[in-house]
Amino acid sequence: MDRLTVVKIGGQVIDDTVKLAHVLSGFLKLEGLKLLVHGGGKKASEMSVRLGVKPRLVEGRRITDEESLEVVTMVYGGLVNKTIVAQLQSLGENAIGLSGADANVIPAHKRAHASIDYGYVGDFDVKDINTAFIKTILHQDITPVFCALTHDRKGSMLNTNADTLAAGIALSLADAFDVTLIYCFEKAGVLLDIDDESSLLEQLSFSHYQQLKRSGAITDGMIPKLDNAFNASKGGVNVTIKDALNLNEDIGTALTS
Amino acid sequence: MDRLTVVKIGGQVIDDTVKLAHVLSGFLKLEGLKLLVHGGGKKASEMSVRLGVKPRLVEGRRITDEESLEVVTMVYGGLVNKTIVAQLQSLGENAIGLSGADANVIPAHKRAHASIDYGYVGDFDVKDINTAFIKTILHQDITPVFCALTHDRKGSMLNTNADTLAAGIALSLADAFDVTLIYCFEKAGVLLDIDDESSLLEQLSFSHYQQLKRSGAITDGMIPKLDNAFNASKGGVNVTIKDALNLNEDIGTALTS
Repeated sequence: MDRLTVVKIGGQVIDDTVKLAHVLSGFLKLEGLKLLVHGGGKKASEMSVRLGVKPRLVEGRRITDEESLEVVTMVYGGLVNKTIVAQLQSLGENAIGLSGADANVIPAHKRAHASIDYGYVGDFDVKDINTAFIKTILHQDITPVFCALTHDRKGSMLNTNADTLAAGIALSLADAFDVTLIYCFEKAGVLLDIDDESSLLEQLSFSHYQQLKRSGAITDGMIPKLDNAFNASKGGVNVTIKDALNLNEDIGTALTS
Repeated sequence: MDRLTVVKIGGQVIDDTVKLAHVLSGFLKLEGLKLLVHGGGKKASEMSVRLGVKPRLVEGRRITDEESLEVVTMVYGGLVNKTIVAQLQSLGENAIGLSGADANVIPAHKRAHASIDYGYVGDFDVKDINTAFIKTILHQDITPVFCALTHDRKGSMLNTNADTLAAGIALSLADAFDVTLIYCFEKAGVLLDIDDESSLLEQLSFSHYQQLKRSGAITDGMIPKLDNAFNASKGGVNVTIKDALNLNEDIGTALTS
């Protein structure tokens, strides 16, 4: 089977031109077929502030109302996506920017929740991902660059978590490729002590993860990320969590079963 | 040869949700393969005002500086493009949004001008258009939706005139398809008297156009539009200029040689 590496990059890297260039050139050095998924970083929040679009919270959860959807569609689908595609082209890599609406790659539905209306937030089923189209792109030696937007098949774009989207795409392609998923962020990997890079876990099993959650060593933003990561891992994807600036070095946390 | 209709829609239609829905459903009723090119309408100007980005003029010409490029990349490439794609998907049409950077479809270069630096404005050569990729998309029964952005192969997006882009794409595909180019706007077609819809020219030859230009009957914005249109017409494209809301009716101005 061909190797495919799905790399998810997020906030801090996207907001910094120099770091982004570094990460993209590292991305291109990866062997085999490649696919990039990006979040939006602070650009969407910045743009919201400049446009006077106030973040709306319900029961502490962030809601994507119509105005916020406009902002993320502009920033993720337009500014960030096209900037990355143009930069990859300048590095000699033929890339194509995609949202989940394009070629109907990721149809989704508004999040259903008993008490909170999240607004234009999209959840998707992995089995609905249009892998046939992604494969035709990969087989033309074109690198897909996904922003974290999906659509509801009723005419609306939807805001989707970029980690979930990357894990879903990786999972959907796991029977056609030998898939590695790399979650990039600003730390060396999963740390036992968030302030101490030497506490890096080189490997993390699901049972160890459960134990670390129970003990409170892993909290907050890392939990949904690791839930997504183990979800992909259980579906046959090799998952590594590492520093975006060390994409080509063998440092990070590899998930084990 | 397969029929391909390239439809260019602009300002007034894009800014109005009801009109846009009407035009898109008319677009879907066209026979044969289809390709849509859209401008940005007033959304980009509106967004510039909201963001405090001032239009810059040099010798009366509008300049695309870095801030303006950010706005058009967001609005054309993100907001407008994804909104149209999502709406086409909801109407059962599999569409894909593309800028000229995606799959390197339209590489361009910054406009070279003796005295004015237009900034991030892109001109392209028709022969550089990546028709092979557009054909693979069309042959998968996917409808390309182009925003009027290109890229410079050096990492920058470029702002490109939507009429020119539509004419260029139509021309580039004229040896592979029986191509019709429809320029849509808010009038019934080319009018001898801009305030009188009954003065519609049902046909317009190049020599008649030259005569109307000399006499001052055709002025302003219509001149670059008709120059683009005749450029496509001379390259073997059937060109019609008509009201966006009458896409399926046989009313408008057909160019003749």
